[in-house]
Amino acid sequence: MPDVSPLDAGAAGLFGPHNLPYGVFATADDPGRGRIGVRIGDQVLDAGAAARAVGSPDAGLLGHPTLGPLLAAGRPAWRRVRAAVADWLTGAAHRDAVAPHLHPLSEVTLRLPIEVADYVDFYASEHHATNAGRLFRPDGEALPPNWKHLPIGYHGRAGTVVVSGTDVTRPSGQRKLPDDASPVFASSARLDFEAEVGFVVGAPSVWGEPVAQGAFADHVFGVCLVNDWSARDIQAWEYQPLGPFLGKSFATSVSPWVVPLDALDAARVAPPARDTPLLPYLDDADEQPWGLDLRLEIRINGHVVSRPPFATMYWTGAQMLAHMTVGGASLRTGDLYASGTVSGPRPDELGCLLELTRGGRTPLRLPDGTERGFLADGDEVSITAWAPGRDGTRVGFGEVTGRVLPAR
Amino acid sequence: MPDVSPLDAGAAGLFGPHNLPYGVFATADDPGRGRIGVRIGDQVLDAGAAARAVGSPDAGLLGHPTLGPLLAAGRPAWRRVRAAVADWLTGAAHRDAVAPHLHPLSEVTLRLPIEVADYVDFYASEHHATNAGRLFRPDGEALPPNWKHLPIGYHGRAGTVVVSGTDVTRPSGQRKLPDDASPVFASSARLDFEAEVGFVVGAPSVWGEPVAQGAFADHVFGVCLVNDWSARDIQAWEYQPLGPFLGKSFATSVSPWVVPLDALDAARVAPPARDTPLLPYLDDADEQPWGLDLRLEIRINGHVVSRPPFATMYWTGAQMLAHMTVGGASLRTGDLYASGTVSGPRPDELGCLLELTRGGRTPLRLPDGTERGFLADGDEVSITAWAPGRDGTRVGFGEVTGRVLPAR
Repeated sequence: MPDVSPLDAGAAGLFGPHNLPYGVFATADDPGRGRIGVRIGDQVLDAGAAARAVGSPDAGLLGHPTLGPLLAAGRPAWRRVRAAVADWLTGAAHRDAVAPHLHPLSEVTLRLPIEVADYVDFYASEHHATNAGRLFRPDGEALPPNWKHLPIGYHGRAGTVVVSGTDVTRPSGQRKLPDDASPVFASSARLDFEAEVGFVVGAPSVWGEPVAQGAFADHVFGVCLVNDWSARDIQAWEYQPLGPFLGKSFATSVSPWVVPLDALDAARVAPPARDTPLLPYLDDADEQPWGLDLRLEIRINGHVVSRPPFATMYWTGAQMLAHMTVGGASLRTGDLYASGTVSGPRPDELGCLLELTRGGRTPLRLPDGTERGFLADGDEVSITAWAPGRDGTRVGFGEVTGRVLPAR
Repeated sequence: MPDVSPLDAGAAGLFGPHNLPYGVFATADDPGRGRIGVRIGDQVLDAGAAARAVGSPDAGLLGHPTLGPLLAAGRPAWRRVRAAVADWLTGAAHRDAVAPHLHPLSEVTLRLPIEVADYVDFYASEHHATNAGRLFRPDGEALPPNWKHLPIGYHGRAGTVVVSGTDVTRPSGQRKLPDDASPVFASSARLDFEAEVGFVVGAPSVWGEPVAQGAFADHVFGVCLVNDWSARDIQAWEYQPLGPFLGKSFATSVSPWVVPLDALDAARVAPPARDTPLLPYLDDADEQPWGLDLRLEIRINGHVVSRPPFATMYWTGAQMLAHMTVGGASLRTGDLYASGTVSGPRPDELGCLLELTRGGRTPLRLPDGTERGFLADGDEVSITAWAPGRDGTRVGFGEVTGRVLPAR
């Protein structure tokens, strides 16, 4: 795959005033203090300081050290603040007042953008579920019988969600090959990434009250990128009957920028045709669909290895939300739910090494001549994405990057 | 089963100065303010007010509206505070000073004792796993091949953990009977409880560093009771391949009192003999074991239906902790992990209706003449427990109680 990427279009194009993603940053001269940042080009606006400089009524909301209060404030506040920030950055009235509060991106430290409440991981790509099913359960049906009736999901570990740039230590644990009599304890020999899209819940919901698909944009603040690091050998031995645990819980990395749903209007597309009738709470035939045309790109040590298309996902974020809450489970500010591995139908659109190398049997050859069945110590995995924006623009997501450290 | 319970010994015996469990309460005249409470008999000591009254250096730690800072302070602080509180309540020096800060239990509101960070549920009873395996997978082996090599666990929803006394609405969701062509959406017809024991993590651990069994008491503050409400029909349809999700996520109830590990010295027992060799990080043959002789009791609408013995659990809390962290997952203050259903070998020692009624096929007959395959609307489930204390005393756990409300 050529290494020329649409993402090379440049930060100005990907992070113009049509995007304005939120994050949390600290500066070198005040490293202990988190501040809400809005990315514009290769700069970060200190949103709280800017709001105070222009006398904004939202200075309180933006002056917090975390995004929590803004996330909790709900869609009317999100819209108002987004419009105000765009005005400060592009209108003539405030440009001089906010200019001192722009920091070069290269000079700030980006932090975890949200305090994760509950973390849920779905399994929403038909291509991924089919490929993974064949590899994990070679003697059974690839797709379980429930797969096309509901978006399968499970809870993951919120406490080990880390921000892009954090090194990840190769985990150790139990693994057992089919021919071994007993499991052995060892460092994972099949460490993998999973390229996913994450949905950040802002407005909480009432315990016991399902959230319908139509309320998706009232509760979900925005979208980020997720690398759901996976130790396939640990996962294969442990996951039946109650699902993945230590194969996933050691680390999950997220991008530092949360792209507001409002920046993704032009990226909404119809999801793939469903061949199985859906129960009413999941049916989206009569709704404006929440398929999203996000184009992901995965690099290992700088080399593009795949470009998974999020538009091919069978289940949308709105369906995942409706399913997650239909039994009465409530949402909290900071809940993060991820799509599961994004894989398209083509061999260069697969979202993890398990699929790209068929369980390690057909290793990837990198341009430096080395091969990868699974990740090697020192490998750096980077997932980026862009989406169509209004008027021919592109909305950038930044990246979620992590380097593999050797097992302890 | 007779309705005469060892728990009727009375609050003075179960909640004497040998116990001193912690919780969070509010009073009727100041309902908005949470306070740390220590139960003594049928009274609750306002620990922060008492600490101030006696000029304790721990007044700050005990004056918080939550247990968080005390939990985070670690074992030396837990021991020091426990000894101080016992001295205030039983020594002559401070008795008069703290007396005004004792509230009758009947006059306070008990709150969720911890802000739950991550919630993990294990599957540590061999009897339960065998019985449940036969019912969920009638054509396969009851115990999966990994069961005796590791304590199987999975993450649950932290945001829907509620305190005893909270009514629980019957969830709705997808279910599909084996002979149905497609799933239907309906309220759960197989709503169940699971009687479990929960471990409350106090001191956090470092990301990437496993916590050995020997460090169990340095990280785990204490023990509570858990009712892991389960919708068996929703669970059966959804749980493969990634584990339970909506069948569990609607609600998990916990008792309001966290019994400190230090109150359970006399309850430590050897776990059952293991018939499968364990990897070193799980082997506890050379350790003082962390089996716990907790005697649970389950009542439906006041009638005792089972007395599960926690001492029969195959895996101990220390093994669960060592396994949960062996891949590098870190602990946070407020993490809660539960044992999974506690079931003993006898038919009157089973910890959930799924087992007590063999999947509903042999309903329980209650003394009022009604039968239960699964829970009926209006049913109140109450789980209590006691453990042997020092010098022939008994350590009470209070109860986790919840009533089933009809589906919305």
